[in-house]
Amino acid sequence: MGTTLRRRRLAVIGAALATETELDLARRVGAEIARSDAILLCGGLGGVMEAAAHGASAAGGLTLGFLPDYDPESANAWIAIPLPTGLGQARNVLVVAGAEAVIAIGGGAGTLSEIGMALKLGRPVVGLGTWKAGRADGEAATILEASEPAAAVRLALAQVRPTP
Amino acid sequence: MGTTLRRRRLAVIGAALATETELDLARRVGAEIARSDAILLCGGLGGVMEAAAHGASAAGGLTLGFLPDYDPESANAWIAIPLPTGLGQARNVLVVAGAEAVIAIGGGAGTLSEIGMALKLGRPVVGLGTWKAGRADGEAATILEASEPAAAVRLALAQVRPTP
Amino acid sequence: MGTTLRRRRLAVIGAALATETELDLARRVGAEIARSDAILLCGGLGGVMEAAAHGASAAGGLTLGFLPDYDPESANAWIAIPLPTGLGQARNVLVVAGAEAVIAIGGGAGTLSEIGMALKLGRPVVGLGTWKAGRADGEAATILEASEPAAAVRLALAQVRPTP
Amino acid sequence: MGTTLRRRRLAVIGAALATETELDLARRVGAEIARSDAILLCGGLGGVMEAAAHGASAAGGLTLGFLPDYDPESANAWIAIPLPTGLGQARNVLVVAGAEAVIAIGGGAGTLSEIGMALKLGRPVVGLGTWKAGRADGEAATILEASEPAAAVRLALAQVRPTP
Repeated sequence: MGTTLRRRRLAVIGAALATETELDLARRVGAEIARSDAILLCGGLGGVMEAAAHGASAAGGLTLGFLPDYDPESANAWIAIPLPTGLGQARNVLVVAGAEAVIAIGGGAGTLSEIGMALKLGRPVVGLGTWKAGRADGEAATILEASEPAAAVRLALAQVRPTP
Repeated sequence: MGTTLRRRRLAVIGAALATETELDLARRVGAEIARSDAILLCGGLGGVMEAAAHGASAAGGLTLGFLPDYDPESANAWIAIPLPTGLGQARNVLVVAGAEAVIAIGGGAGTLSEIGMALKLGRPVVGLGTWKAGRADGEAATILEASEPAAAVRLALAQVRPTP
Repeated sequence: MGTTLRRRRLAVIGAALATETELDLARRVGAEIARSDAILLCGGLGGVMEAAAHGASAAGGLTLGFLPDYDPESANAWIAIPLPTGLGQARNVLVVAGAEAVIAIGGGAGTLSEIGMALKLGRPVVGLGTWKAGRADGEAATILEASEPAAAVRLALAQVRPTP
Repeated sequence: MGTTLRRRRLAVIGAALATETELDLARRVGAEIARSDAILLCGGLGGVMEAAAHGASAAGGLTLGFLPDYDPESANAWIAIPLPTGLGQARNVLVVAGAEAVIAIGGGAGTLSEIGMALKLGRPVVGLGTWKAGRADGEAATILEASEPAAAVRLALAQVRPTP
């Protein structure tokens, strides 16, 4: 049975343009993901994506970046497995579809699209200072709020089924 | 010069499971889109997608549906141009990328992902009883609220550049 | 029943860099597609794509182009419905998945990928001076050779199920 | 500088239905890829994909599978990093876009589409008993023929730029 070789996969989503606070959160989330022995999935570029990959890589973790174009060198320096896709912004779908749970940090419209897609696909979403969204009829998007990085990763892992 | 043959393209997004009020709004939005001589783009399935296509088709408009699977017959009966994509939920990206402006009616998590993607790609979004989204730092997603179907279509067309 | 409003959809595939002979074939194939009342699907750019759209448009047909980037203005002048996808070369999959049958004219590696994908998806492929492909074990790709444009379109339509 | 952490990525493509000879070739190619310290990319399902992943995994290598649907459990047992995409057959594009070079073993129409796409994207293709393709004008697709698994992996690596 090879199933035991399966690796856990957590995504970190957030914007290329981010505040210092968000970058610090991302670095710490990345480090916690590495410590949990999960693989970090992200969009592979700068800002929150780079900080999370930096944190994970520095803590000995494996990092994977889905890139919007065809050039593996467009990945930030902390991505061990660059995956050029050529799919443009549709690569956002891959980041969340590929993960077992998603941690959102700050973020712009692209991050909002990823949160919506994660919820559509049944991937749990944990937020650190990210979007809140609600409908006119009162229904709210299920974004699990965490207070700090270690709690965010614990919360994300707690949503994931025992056998990945 | 063939440019003059270019057709305007407006997308209607919303859920397969919708209320009677939402379906009625969608039908009337579809009819207004047809009257404006624009092509209706949508996700091709049921609920809001079907009601909008019905409204557009009954008013003599052209309707196009991006389908998640490979079977053109999965399209609702009011789609004149079924486009099977096989891309699953990623076909949401095509609905908004293909349009010049987007009208959101009600909607679930898939619609939220489309709103985020539309804003990321610079496609204006007009809302009829749809999501509101804001970030922890106070920034809100730019969803232009309309009071009723004709106003929604007018507002959407007003956002579109003169030469499509 | 709205099914009767369904339009036939035929794709023309071929390279942006094409010979005069290929461009002439593409123009005539486009015209025949328009005369058959089918919609022409293509990749929306230059060369064979432009010549086919030109032929179809001049004969009063409707033309649809799946574009690799997000800019509708990247479409050639004979495309009535430009569909920006942002999917890069993966938009090739949409051209063949969206069509009921595919006509290949000349073509480079991109066209070869579309032929393979069309066969994988069960879309019949008719060729005019295009690729031949065979395996080491003797199996050949089923590309129906046509002698000239009108025969190619007749052959393509003959493969399509009676009710689209 | 984090660049040194970048991992080489080689794809193995081939059909889910394969002969014993092809499965044996795939297992040995997978093992050679692992020995070269590259990551194996594949389509994640059965047949050639499973045999290659088995060979790589048994030799201590890392294996990654791009899956057509959203279920990570659809991956074969030897995939360490299952990446559900939901993109259907368009996930073929990801397999070749993500790799630095591609090794094709036998294969059906899906493999032919991947060969065409790899050549379009400038990814070198090495073949073991796979497709040959040529155009009416005499131009042939550049598929580098290898005589056996170790030679195929050497040939693939020789095509890859020194710094990944």
